[in-house]
Amino acid sequence: MNVSIRGQVRPCRTVTFDAPHNTVCLIEQRLLPHQFKIVATPDYRATARAITDMVVRGAGAIGATAAYGLAQGARAFRGGNLEKFSAHLRLVFETLESARPTAVDPVNAMNAVLRAVKAGSTVAEQQDLALAAAEEFANDNVQHCAAIGRHGEKLIRAGSRILTHCNAGWLAFVDIGSATAPLYAAQKAGKKFHVFCDETRPRCQGATLTAWELAGQKISHDIISDNAAGHLMQRGEIDLVIVGADRVLGRTGEVANKIGTYTKAVLAHRHRIPFYVAIPLSTLDWNLHSGAEIPIEERSQEEVLGARGVVRGVPGQAYVRIANPSSSARNPGFDVTPAELITGIITPEGLFPPRRLWQNCQRLGGRAN
Amino acid sequence: MNVSIRGQVRPCRTVTFDAPHNTVCLIEQRLLPHQFKIVATPDYRATARAITDMVVRGAGAIGATAAYGLAQGARAFRGGNLEKFSAHLRLVFETLESARPTAVDPVNAMNAVLRAVKAGSTVAEQQDLALAAAEEFANDNVQHCAAIGRHGEKLIRAGSRILTHCNAGWLAFVDIGSATAPLYAAQKAGKKFHVFCDETRPRCQGATLTAWELAGQKISHDIISDNAAGHLMQRGEIDLVIVGADRVLGRTGEVANKIGTYTKAVLAHRHRIPFYVAIPLSTLDWNLHSGAEIPIEERSQEEVLGARGVVRGVPGQAYVRIANPSSSARNPGFDVTPAELITGIITPEGLFPPRRLWQNCQRLGGRAN
Repeated sequence: MNVSIRGQVRPCRTVTFDAPHNTVCLIEQRLLPHQFKIVATPDYRATARAITDMVVRGAGAIGATAAYGLAQGARAFRGGNLEKFSAHLRLVFETLESARPTAVDPVNAMNAVLRAVKAGSTVAEQQDLALAAAEEFANDNVQHCAAIGRHGEKLIRAGSRILTHCNAGWLAFVDIGSATAPLYAAQKAGKKFHVFCDETRPRCQGATLTAWELAGQKISHDIISDNAAGHLMQRGEIDLVIVGADRVLGRTGEVANKIGTYTKAVLAHRHRIPFYVAIPLSTLDWNLHSGAEIPIEERSQEEVLGARGVVRGVPGQAYVRIANPSSSARNPGFDVTPAELITGIITPEGLFPPRRLWQNCQRLGGRAN
Repeated sequence: MNVSIRGQVRPCRTVTFDAPHNTVCLIEQRLLPHQFKIVATPDYRATARAITDMVVRGAGAIGATAAYGLAQGARAFRGGNLEKFSAHLRLVFETLESARPTAVDPVNAMNAVLRAVKAGSTVAEQQDLALAAAEEFANDNVQHCAAIGRHGEKLIRAGSRILTHCNAGWLAFVDIGSATAPLYAAQKAGKKFHVFCDETRPRCQGATLTAWELAGQKISHDIISDNAAGHLMQRGEIDLVIVGADRVLGRTGEVANKIGTYTKAVLAHRHRIPFYVAIPLSTLDWNLHSGAEIPIEERSQEEVLGARGVVRGVPGQAYVRIANPSSSARNPGFDVTPAELITGIITPEGLFPPRRLWQNCQRLGGRAN
């Protein structure tokens, strides 16, 4: 997407590779929305750390980061011994894999790089192939999001008022995003519409990342507290909901996504407001048989007990303790929305009712196990 | 309720009157939960300012504050001219009434004081009667909350897991509270139970005031983000919901309360979890014919775009800007829950299905208009 840097508007991806310097270039997402900065990781260990430390987050974005990190590690290898090179690649793979162990995108992305490398017969050839495969993964990610946009754009009418939750924007992918793809496509098609961004406590990705993205693209939007969407739906002020997902079960159509997604789906269902989930194919899980099998991460209490932001007179960002100091918090990070509450899943292959994913398994890149 | 001050536990009301000094004593609620402090307002104008500036908030609490403020103003009058005294009382009344113009409790409380004063034949007698009537209003408020507790306590079983939203605790009344009254009564009855406090963005009264109250009374509780209750209900971790209200329509059983209440009622209904609203009789509105007639206050954007709390290295409390600086926010402060989602209204007169309020109008202190 376009980013305005010191008054100059230029296109920007969340993750890119600087081949001459052999560095991975990342938007430092922890500084957003208060500061925009691109950082370069000098070696694959630093790239892995950038994933662990949340410099980069979001399924597609960390997938591309891991693929580039593997190519970066491959290209740093000195010598011509293919066996030693292979052992080195395995080490790089494992380092990057363990940077965010619960995510599946980095593994899928790096496996694609490893498959491509096999066609080379020298270390130098394999190094070139690794980078080409990483670039292909990143480009494919962009194309998949663009396809989501083409299919999802048809759901948006002139004047539509759209609710989204958390950030499934271009910052979470290489570009364009999943839940935001229909918005950007509708804007390109000249449609005027308005977006409500759920704040998305406790980490506030809606108020920070999604709002920053939409402001940057000049899309009309308002941030609302997570409590307010029900009231707006009651008053007829929301026409459709589009969210992303962390995992969609191909067998059942259940959707695991940021905590609060289920609540919005229940509200939308009561008010007969269409509720869509936008995902690339890599978010489909063809193995699990029930949403109850999805492990729900219980995150740090500190996220609920306070918030991060800018305080006058304090440099950088500060943590503010909001809650009563002697109280504890529960902090489930995700929830599971059943298929019955979901109008459709927007994929690069088109729009599917959630219970029709399974019969389209092959077309959607899955294999029945 | 009991408060621990410098290690000493002693009973404490939200609002009291210091007759020798003719001051109204208030818990400085803006400092909670980070600091406990009682402030004394030296005259009725300062008492009015304390209401306006939110030193004291909550329907019952500002009712008692206004009643005491009127007595305070009456007692400050010098001379024996009854006509001048009456004119002075009118001025005090108007000053206190305009401190929070949308609230009905201060007006009801002060009218009770004015009615009582009429029985006196000298200024001195009327001054004494004013204070006695204010004390009576405060004591009645405590008794009403205690009665809510007796009726509501029966709904809580050993092991119950109870969700509450915002603060309808003793801080919002003179003592005991409305939504919290059943909790304190159940604790006295020796029942063990657990409370989930919705954070209640944007002003976070659940994370600050309710959590502080429950911690002070040693009631087991956790703060959760407003996004988390749906997930906990899905997992069978919530047994009942008790909230307070800003206004309950006697004619329809509709409930206006803090933004997000409606969402919790929709979720509870889906999961067949009982949803109760606890109120004193002064919260009943016998005039309006529909919840759509209730004006919903649109509050400052700043509340949604940031939060207040304690920042290391910064004295007192600070405002932290969370959201993207170039984004705007919508901030409806209240919502309306329809009767069909409410299991029962807990009043000092007992438990009523929301649609049976009207036929019990007289018993509930109302007059059909």
